[in-house]
Amino acid sequence: MIVVVKHGASEKQIENLTNWFKAKGVEPDVSKGTDMTIIGLVGDVSKIDTELVEALDIVDSVKRVSEPFKQANRKFHPDDTVVTLKNGTKIGGGNFVYMAGPCSVESEEQIIYCAQRVKAAGAQILRGGAFKPRTSPYSFQGMGEDGIRLLMEAKKETGLPIVTELMDIKHIDLFTDVDIIQIGARNMQNFELLKEIGHCDKPILLKRGLANTIQEWLMSAEYIMAGGNHNVILCERGIRTYETYTRNTLDLSAVPAVHELSHLPIIVDPSHATGLSRMVPTMALGAAAVGANGLMIEVHNDPPRAKCDGAQSLTPDQFDQVTASVGKVLAALRG
Amino acid sequence: MIVVVKHGASEKQIENLTNWFKAKGVEPDVSKGTDMTIIGLVGDVSKIDTELVEALDIVDSVKRVSEPFKQANRKFHPDDTVVTLKNGTKIGGGNFVYMAGPCSVESEEQIIYCAQRVKAAGAQILRGGAFKPRTSPYSFQGMGEDGIRLLMEAKKETGLPIVTELMDIKHIDLFTDVDIIQIGARNMQNFELLKEIGHCDKPILLKRGLANTIQEWLMSAEYIMAGGNHNVILCERGIRTYETYTRNTLDLSAVPAVHELSHLPIIVDPSHATGLSRMVPTMALGAAAVGANGLMIEVHNDPPRAKCDGAQSLTPDQFDQVTASVGKVLAALRG
Amino acid sequence: MIVVVKHGASEKQIENLTNWFKAKGVEPDVSKGTDMTIIGLVGDVSKIDTELVEALDIVDSVKRVSEPFKQANRKFHPDDTVVTLKNGTKIGGGNFVYMAGPCSVESEEQIIYCAQRVKAAGAQILRGGAFKPRTSPYSFQGMGEDGIRLLMEAKKETGLPIVTELMDIKHIDLFTDVDIIQIGARNMQNFELLKEIGHCDKPILLKRGLANTIQEWLMSAEYIMAGGNHNVILCERGIRTYETYTRNTLDLSAVPAVHELSHLPIIVDPSHATGLSRMVPTMALGAAAVGANGLMIEVHNDPPRAKCDGAQSLTPDQFDQVTASVGKVLAALRG
Amino acid sequence: MIVVVKHGASEKQIENLTNWFKAKGVEPDVSKGTDMTIIGLVGDVSKIDTELVEALDIVDSVKRVSEPFKQANRKFHPDDTVVTLKNGTKIGGGNFVYMAGPCSVESEEQIIYCAQRVKAAGAQILRGGAFKPRTSPYSFQGMGEDGIRLLMEAKKETGLPIVTELMDIKHIDLFTDVDIIQIGARNMQNFELLKEIGHCDKPILLKRGLANTIQEWLMSAEYIMAGGNHNVILCERGIRTYETYTRNTLDLSAVPAVHELSHLPIIVDPSHATGLSRMVPTMALGAAAVGANGLMIEVHNDPPRAKCDGAQSLTPDQFDQVTASVGKVLAALRG
Repeated sequence: MIVVVKHGASEKQIENLTNWFKAKGVEPDVSKGTDMTIIGLVGDVSKIDTELVEALDIVDSVKRVSEPFKQANRKFHPDDTVVTLKNGTKIGGGNFVYMAGPCSVESEEQIIYCAQRVKAAGAQILRGGAFKPRTSPYSFQGMGEDGIRLLMEAKKETGLPIVTELMDIKHIDLFTDVDIIQIGARNMQNFELLKEIGHCDKPILLKRGLANTIQEWLMSAEYIMAGGNHNVILCERGIRTYETYTRNTLDLSAVPAVHELSHLPIIVDPSHATGLSRMVPTMALGAAAVGANGLMIEVHNDPPRAKCDGAQSLTPDQFDQVTASVGKVLAALRG
Repeated sequence: MIVVVKHGASEKQIENLTNWFKAKGVEPDVSKGTDMTIIGLVGDVSKIDTELVEALDIVDSVKRVSEPFKQANRKFHPDDTVVTLKNGTKIGGGNFVYMAGPCSVESEEQIIYCAQRVKAAGAQILRGGAFKPRTSPYSFQGMGEDGIRLLMEAKKETGLPIVTELMDIKHIDLFTDVDIIQIGARNMQNFELLKEIGHCDKPILLKRGLANTIQEWLMSAEYIMAGGNHNVILCERGIRTYETYTRNTLDLSAVPAVHELSHLPIIVDPSHATGLSRMVPTMALGAAAVGANGLMIEVHNDPPRAKCDGAQSLTPDQFDQVTASVGKVLAALRG
Repeated sequence: MIVVVKHGASEKQIENLTNWFKAKGVEPDVSKGTDMTIIGLVGDVSKIDTELVEALDIVDSVKRVSEPFKQANRKFHPDDTVVTLKNGTKIGGGNFVYMAGPCSVESEEQIIYCAQRVKAAGAQILRGGAFKPRTSPYSFQGMGEDGIRLLMEAKKETGLPIVTELMDIKHIDLFTDVDIIQIGARNMQNFELLKEIGHCDKPILLKRGLANTIQEWLMSAEYIMAGGNHNVILCERGIRTYETYTRNTLDLSAVPAVHELSHLPIIVDPSHATGLSRMVPTMALGAAAVGANGLMIEVHNDPPRAKCDGAQSLTPDQFDQVTASVGKVLAALRG
Repeated sequence: MIVVVKHGASEKQIENLTNWFKAKGVEPDVSKGTDMTIIGLVGDVSKIDTELVEALDIVDSVKRVSEPFKQANRKFHPDDTVVTLKNGTKIGGGNFVYMAGPCSVESEEQIIYCAQRVKAAGAQILRGGAFKPRTSPYSFQGMGEDGIRLLMEAKKETGLPIVTELMDIKHIDLFTDVDIIQIGARNMQNFELLKEIGHCDKPILLKRGLANTIQEWLMSAEYIMAGGNHNVILCERGIRTYETYTRNTLDLSAVPAVHELSHLPIIVDPSHATGLSRMVPTMALGAAAVGANGLMIEVHNDPPRAKCDGAQSLTPDQFDQVTASVGKVLAALRG
C-alpha cells in the first residue's frame, strides 16, 4: 500500500502517521521528495482501512498495490483449478462443459425428458431449479424438496450430475446427493451463506451479482475458499446497465479478466444474461470464443408453458444446434 | 395487461392465444383494428409471465398496466403508514427521525458514549452494527452476540430504541429486545430471509440494494408484508453508477418516487451513499428538503480509529451541527 | 401507439383526449372494457410526444408499438445493406472486414509501415486518426491536415482505403479522398454534424456513444439516412458501466440485437472497448463468433512510444495472430 | 505521478524506464524497498500517458497524484468564481439565480408571456430553446433563427438576460445579444465546439454529459478556459443509470463535489433530470439545500400543448410556488 502525504504536512504529523502504521503491525517506508512525501507500507496491510487513511487531513491519496484476494489469486496459484465431480467430470483447465436443463423442475416426466435430451446433445451436467429466487412473492417459488427428489430421479435415470440452487443453509441436508451447489446472483454477497458453504465439501457454482465488480466477485469466492472449500466455479450471467434491449448486459470480457486474475474456472450463462432465447445460440458462440470453460443454458421441453423464464429457454432441438456449432468453434480454436 | 398482436397473425392463432389466457384464469378482451389487434387481460394477471408472452411469435409487445406490488401500493392504501416503536417513537407521516451511531459496536464505553451524544443532539434511535457484512472475509466481522449485548446496555442507559442488522435468521433469538431489524443492501433480495422476517412482529428497516430499481425494492417490501409484517421502513443509501467520486450515487429522487408509489416511510442514509464524512451534512440537508421521513447517520467517537467505515463517520460534534441545520430546513418547509 | 386511460376518467375527458389526437392527425380507436379504456392510435404517430401524453391526468400509461426509426429498420428493408467502397471492398452481408492501424498518425514512416503490415496481415482498410478527440485540452490533438495528407500517402503506397475521424464539418474539404468518415462516440448525438454528413456521399462509420442505447444509436443512423446518405456502418466500442477492470464494457450482444433491428452492417472495436492490448485478441474472437461484420483494431509499430492509446494497441506481429485465429473461427462458423 | 515497479524487475529495466521518463521531461525519484520499487515523477506529467505506462511489463500500477484540470481547479484558485452578466446579474458565490422558461420558443406571445411570468416569480434569466437537439430527426427541431429573434423580443420586453443553446459554431453570429451560451449534455465532449467557444467572451452554461464523470465535466470546462474564456457555469441535469422511474438520476452530490474540486458556479436542472413535472418542485428544494448556486427550470404557458418536453414543464403558477418554497429553504440556511 502506498500513501501520498499532502504537501505542507509537518514532520510531527508524518511521524504520528508512521507510528500509527507501526501500531497496526505494518512497516512504513518514508520517501521524501521536494514536492511530495510517499509512505510505502510493507507487511500485512489487510488490516488497514484504505478509505479511513484517505480521509486523514494530511493524506492526499492511498493506493493498494496488491489485490485483496489471496486464495483465489492466480499470482499465488498459477495453475488452473480443475474441479472434479464424483463421476469424474472435470470443470476448468482445458475442459469445456455444458450445464443444461429447465429453469425450474416441474414434474418427473419434464425433468427426465429434459435430462435425456440435453445428455444426448452433449451436456455433462443437468441444471434445474427446486428453490427459485423470484422478484415477486406471488410468483411460483419452485417445487422445493420435491424438486430435489425429482432431480435425483433424473440423475439416476441418466447418470448426469446435478447443479441446483441453494437459497438458505437450512435446506443443506436436502443437497446430500446434489453434485454442485449453485449460489445465485442475488446471494453473491450473502456473506453468512458463503461462510456456511465454505465448510461443505461440494463444488460451488458462484454466479456474479447483478451489479458486482469482478473484484467483489472474487472476494466472494475468497469467502468460500477461506472456509476450506476450494472447489469454486464462477459463472458470468450478465450485469445491470442502462441498456434495456437485453435483460442484462453479458460481460464477456469478464472471462479473460477472470483468467488473468484467478485460477478458478469460469462458465457463462447466456440465458439469464440476454433473457431472449433467440439470442442464446449466438452469445453461446461468443462465450466459447473468448475462452469460457463452459456454458450454462436453460433448456425446456415446452418453453411457452414453462413455469418460469420460458422466454429465455431453448427447446431441446435448438440446444442440439448450440452444442454442434459451439463444438465447431472450440475445434477451430484448438486446431 | 395489454397484449399487442402482430400484424398478420391468423384468426386461428389469435383464438389459440385467447384460449391459453382463459386457461390461466384471466379474461381476454380482443379489440381488432385495421392495423393491429389488441388483447386486454382482465383478472388476476399476476400468474402471467410477461416475458414469455412477449416471446411468442405472433405477439409484438406486452405491457403491464398495474404495478406488481399490492400491499406496499399507495393506490390500495392511500394514507401514510406510521410505524410506532415500543417506546412510542413514530416513523413516517409528519414525523422526522434520526437513527445515529457508530458503524459497528466496539466496546461498552464507545457505544454508551455515542448513544449519549446522539441522544443529546436529538436522535431518537441508536444504530450500531453487531453483525457486519464485509466484502472481505479478512475484515472485522463485528462483535456478534457481544455487540448485541452492548447495544442493550446502551439502550438501558439512554432509553434509545435500537436498530441493528440481521444477516442470518439463525441469530433472530438474539434480537428479542432489538427495536428495528435492519436488512442490509446486499440482502435486499435474499428472499428466504425476507420471508422469515415477514413472520416476525418487529419493524424492519429495508435498505435499497446496490443496484436495484425502486420497483424491485418495493417488491422486497412486499415479500415482508405478504408474510404479515406491515411495519416496513425503506432506506435509500445510494446506488451503483459509473461515477467514482462518491462511493455510491445518492438517489434523492427515490424519496418523492417512493412517496408516490407507496405509503411506507422512507429515510435516507447519506453516510453509506457518499462514503465521505465531509459530504454527509450537505446531503442530509438535501434529504430533509426532498421529504425524507428521517436520516440514518454514522457517528463515531473517534472516526480515524473506527474499526470500519471511519472515513464516512461524523464526530459527535459534527452530528450536533447536522441536527441543528436540518432542523432549520424542516422548520422552513413546515412554516 | 396505445394509450391506457385511468379508471375513473369521465366520458367528456376521454372525448377531449380523442379530439386532441385527431387534431394531431392520428386516428384514435377507443376500446372500453369494464376495468380500463384503451385508445389505439393509427397513422403517423411520430408527432405525438409519448411523455407528454403519459403526463396527462387521465392517462395511466402509453406504449409505442413500433420503433421510431424507419430507414434503418429491418422491418422495412429486410435485406442486409452492403456498403461498397470505391476500390470494391464490401462491408456488410457475408463479408468480414478488418480496419486496422494506429490510434493517431504520427509520421510518414509510421503510417506507411503500419499500413504495409496490416495489409499483409489481411486488413482491407487502414485506420488512423488525424483529428483526435481527447478528454484533456493539454493532450496531443492529432496532426490535423498533415495527418490526412500522410494517410493519403499510405493509401497511394498500399492501395488501402482510409477510415478516419471527422470532428467538425469545417474540415470536410480535407476528406475528399478519405473512403470512410468516422463519427466518434462523443459525437454520436452531435445532431448538427449528423445532418451535415447526411448530405455527403461517403460511407459513414458511426460509433456507439459512451452510454447510449441501441435505439438511440439507430436514431443517430436515422439522422444520417434522413439526409440521403444510406451508407452507414455501425461500430460497437464498449459502453460505460460501473465495472472498472476494462476501460468500457464491450456489449457483444449489441451485435445480434442490431442484426435483428436493422439491416446496417455492424463492426466491433475491441481496442477502445477494453483499453488493454492483451485482451484485444480474445475479444476479437468473441466479436467474430457473435456475427460482427468486421473488426476495427488499433495496431502501432511501437505501442510504448505511441502518442495516444499505446496501452490498447497491438504490435503488427500480434495483429498477424489475430487475423489468423479470427479466420479459423469464421471458417468454422461457415463450414 | 507515482509508478510502482513489479517485484522482479531488473536494475537495467528500471534504468531504461527512468531514462524514458527523463526524455519526456520529468524527473524520476526512485525509491527502492525490499518488496517494491516506487518511482515518483516530479515536473509536468501532463504529457505522460498513464495507461501506457501501466501497460509496460515491469510496471505494476500507476497513480496520478494531482487532478488533470488546472484552471478549473479550486487548489489554484481558492475563491469562488462569480460570473457577471451585462445587466449586472451575478452567478456564483453567495448569489442564487433562477433560469426559467419554456423548453423551446414557439411564438412571440408564448415567450413574452413566459418571460413576464417567470420574472414576476423571481427569475433573473430567461431560458428558451431555438436550436433543439432531438433524438429523432423527425421531431420538432426548434424555430432556429426566428427563435433567437423572439428571445430578443422577450428580452426587450422584460429586461431578462437570455440563455439558449448553441449546437453548431456556424450559428454564433446569431448569438450576439444572447447573454449566456448553453452547451447541451450531448455536446459536452464535442471538443471542437468547446475550443471555439473558448475564444468568445460570453458566459457559457456547460451541462453535464449523459454519462460523464465529474472529472470529465471539469476537463470540458478546462477546454473552454484554456481558450481564454473563464466565465463557465456548470449545470447538473441528471445522469444515466439503470433506474427507469425518472428519466435520469439527479446526482445532487455532484454539487458539493464540484464545490470541493472547482471554483466555478454550479446550478441544477431538475426538469431534465426527472422528466416529470410533479417531481420538479421537490428536487428544486433538494438542490437549494445542498448548496447549488441556482436552478434551471422549464416553465411553459400550456404544458400539454408544448412542442417538446411538456411532461417535465411547470405551469407559471407552479413555478410561483417553487420560488416561494425554495426561498424559505435558502433563508433558513442563511439564517
